[in-house]
Amino acid sequence: MRLSRHFIPVMKESPADAQIISHKLMLRAGLIRQTAAGIYAWLPLGYRVLRKIEQIVREEQDRAGAIELLMPTIQSADLWRQSGRYDDYGLEMLRIKDRHERDMLYGPTAEEVITAIFRDSAKSYRDLPRTLYNIQWKFRDEVRPRFGVMRGREFLMKDAYSFDMDEAGARHSYNRMFVAYLNTYARMGLRAIPMQADTGPIGGDLSHEFIVLAPTGESEVFYHSNWEKPAELSSVDFDDVEGLQAIVSGYTADYAATDEKRDEAREAAIGGDLRQSRGVEVGHIFYFGTKYSAPMGLKVQGPDGGEVVPHMGSYGIGVSRLMGAIIEASHDDNGIIWPEAVAPYKVGIINMRADDARCTAAADDLYARLNAAGVEALYDDRDERGGAKFATMDLIGLPWQVVIGPKGLERGVVELKNRKSGEKVELSIEDALARLAG
Amino acid sequence: MRLSRHFIPVMKESPADAQIISHKLMLRAGLIRQTAAGIYAWLPLGYRVLRKIEQIVREEQDRAGAIELLMPTIQSADLWRQSGRYDDYGLEMLRIKDRHERDMLYGPTAEEVITAIFRDSAKSYRDLPRTLYNIQWKFRDEVRPRFGVMRGREFLMKDAYSFDMDEAGARHSYNRMFVAYLNTYARMGLRAIPMQADTGPIGGDLSHEFIVLAPTGESEVFYHSNWEKPAELSSVDFDDVEGLQAIVSGYTADYAATDEKRDEAREAAIGGDLRQSRGVEVGHIFYFGTKYSAPMGLKVQGPDGGEVVPHMGSYGIGVSRLMGAIIEASHDDNGIIWPEAVAPYKVGIINMRADDARCTAAADDLYARLNAAGVEALYDDRDERGGAKFATMDLIGLPWQVVIGPKGLERGVVELKNRKSGEKVELSIEDALARLAG
Repeated sequence: MRLSRHFIPVMKESPADAQIISHKLMLRAGLIRQTAAGIYAWLPLGYRVLRKIEQIVREEQDRAGAIELLMPTIQSADLWRQSGRYDDYGLEMLRIKDRHERDMLYGPTAEEVITAIFRDSAKSYRDLPRTLYNIQWKFRDEVRPRFGVMRGREFLMKDAYSFDMDEAGARHSYNRMFVAYLNTYARMGLRAIPMQADTGPIGGDLSHEFIVLAPTGESEVFYHSNWEKPAELSSVDFDDVEGLQAIVSGYTADYAATDEKRDEAREAAIGGDLRQSRGVEVGHIFYFGTKYSAPMGLKVQGPDGGEVVPHMGSYGIGVSRLMGAIIEASHDDNGIIWPEAVAPYKVGIINMRADDARCTAAADDLYARLNAAGVEALYDDRDERGGAKFATMDLIGLPWQVVIGPKGLERGVVELKNRKSGEKVELSIEDALARLAG
Repeated sequence: MRLSRHFIPVMKESPADAQIISHKLMLRAGLIRQTAAGIYAWLPLGYRVLRKIEQIVREEQDRAGAIELLMPTIQSADLWRQSGRYDDYGLEMLRIKDRHERDMLYGPTAEEVITAIFRDSAKSYRDLPRTLYNIQWKFRDEVRPRFGVMRGREFLMKDAYSFDMDEAGARHSYNRMFVAYLNTYARMGLRAIPMQADTGPIGGDLSHEFIVLAPTGESEVFYHSNWEKPAELSSVDFDDVEGLQAIVSGYTADYAATDEKRDEAREAAIGGDLRQSRGVEVGHIFYFGTKYSAPMGLKVQGPDGGEVVPHMGSYGIGVSRLMGAIIEASHDDNGIIWPEAVAPYKVGIINMRADDARCTAAADDLYARLNAAGVEALYDDRDERGGAKFATMDLIGLPWQVVIGPKGLERGVVELKNRKSGEKVELSIEDALARLAG
């Protein structure tokens, strides 16, 4: 895409109410604009990143055997009365009356809706196990929205729900999501640490939060230094019950806990390997047995003809919040440093002299050939000073920059810069193309 | 995907309140489930189709030079007070108070939000022209939701907004969308006819509706028989102002009008070539000048230093409604007949005898090889009667079926059926694979 025809409204300064670095950078780089308190529009560059994050989440859910559907944002209050949560949920739930004065709400989560859908469709043990997920906008009416997309009111969440015949089956479904989550974060360059957690308004008795370390995080966290090693993808057969349990047990062997769940005895035993930091919650998984299936009347016929009430779990990832977490984990004084897997474009082309026919011809040609090779490129073809172009390109944080100027072209070279390392090399356009398309 | 692990709850009968064929078939084929009046969950099969429709819409918007972003579903009433529409909009707007008693609403459209975003970012004539679009859920609180997704309350819409320096520029942006729309529908196998339309609550003085012919449509329409020829894709340079105008003029030369816009003199001149039918509106485009930019204070600096108030247009496609329109246009007594471009899977594999090791081995093998070739396949591996499997596969309407049974395998053949033509051929598994992967 040519910057001269794009819509990337970068800003020199960020508004005073932006306190944390990810919020500042998302505003300055033209990723988001606030349209109401805690509610954001995703501008073109930000929406490209959001869709890439969403797609990684989707692929890892699919790989773990979950099935995608989409539930509506507006739910009927009647379903929440069946589960008993309607009165309990409090002011965070955005309650709505429609034109016929019926009680509706903007879903903050979807246990009730999915349980009703499954109840009306599943009849027999052959319809289980199933894990269903959706990636949909949610609304929680935070009393004090802050930190940009980290604690917004309207946010994109992946929520999955598992249905199993018994607790052992539910445990396996839980383990599937546990491993799928770690793989999801690893693909985005994030080390997320699973920590035992309270279950809160979802309920249940087994729960983990996944927390990315960041000095601006809302949670205080304690963990073994083993967690400091880089995240790795688990390649695993998700149908292998024992193999999956072994992986989960391996992960949970190393101590990690939020402030509320600290274990003084274990911490004492760890000694000098204990670490303390702050973190951002980017996922939360729950097993809650029959908490929703029993009151809402979900039951299926078992193999022996008897009725079985399925055991359920639910599994959330904050998709829009992940963008903030990635930026908290990957930036410098000049701007964002996108991991390649979620970068809005892989490479930025800077034409240093849009008024120079030779520079423009070379930049146009490189842009056309990158497009033809399927490499996503953002081409700064504007008639602006080179310094402004460098600053913009560093701010928006594409992994690679190609700088094309008249002096280099005289020697037959362009400059290729790696945004993360800052390393710059001069090479021919052919070699730059080969490196970027390779 | 294996049907034994999928979630496709088909139904023998459709609920009594489903009146039109697309609504009946979407329920019976397990594409959607109603969760409240006029509000639907998109089950896995339906959501796959919805995403394919959405992707075609996206690709044609991109090709026409529009830039994608995403606006939130919940909007502030203040913006609508700036445009003067808040009080006018009536009961179709879902009005909401948040916990701080601020007036919010669920966006039925987004002229105000996009005008505010553009106003806060665009400063100069160099920032124009731009067309920005998003594909986002909208809510209109219909007094009597009906016909399934055709007139639901929560629905997916593509809405684009153009900003130009003057009326001539806006006319070109309008023409871009005009042609992009016809290409979009043609890719889905739909002949949509553009008809001059009233502008309604959007306002403005130039507007076309795009209508797909269907006996269940809400609009009565009149058109020249020339419109009965199949739709073709226009391959066009969207920057060619005169070329694009010529294409649009060519399309609008043939008479087509809704009931409110009939021209008796033109109809008399057409004589025996006049046709009458009913239709479903699947798109609506508007040019409305400075109706929003002027009251909301959007202005940019012109080339001569003076202030210019941009001319705007808006352009909607009913993405979720399109699924209903496609089914209305493409079905038979046995179920849906998906055009290949939007089919949830390209091919269904029917294992006639899941209890027969040879059949199962052959079906497993074909399924694995189709997956490896990147062909989307739904594999009915369940232990059910063949008759039930045939009925299900016809109902859900995949373009191709491969039937694998013991008698055929003895002769080294399987049966390949084309869902649309009903044509069946016997051929080897190798030949079936070559035909499907080709």
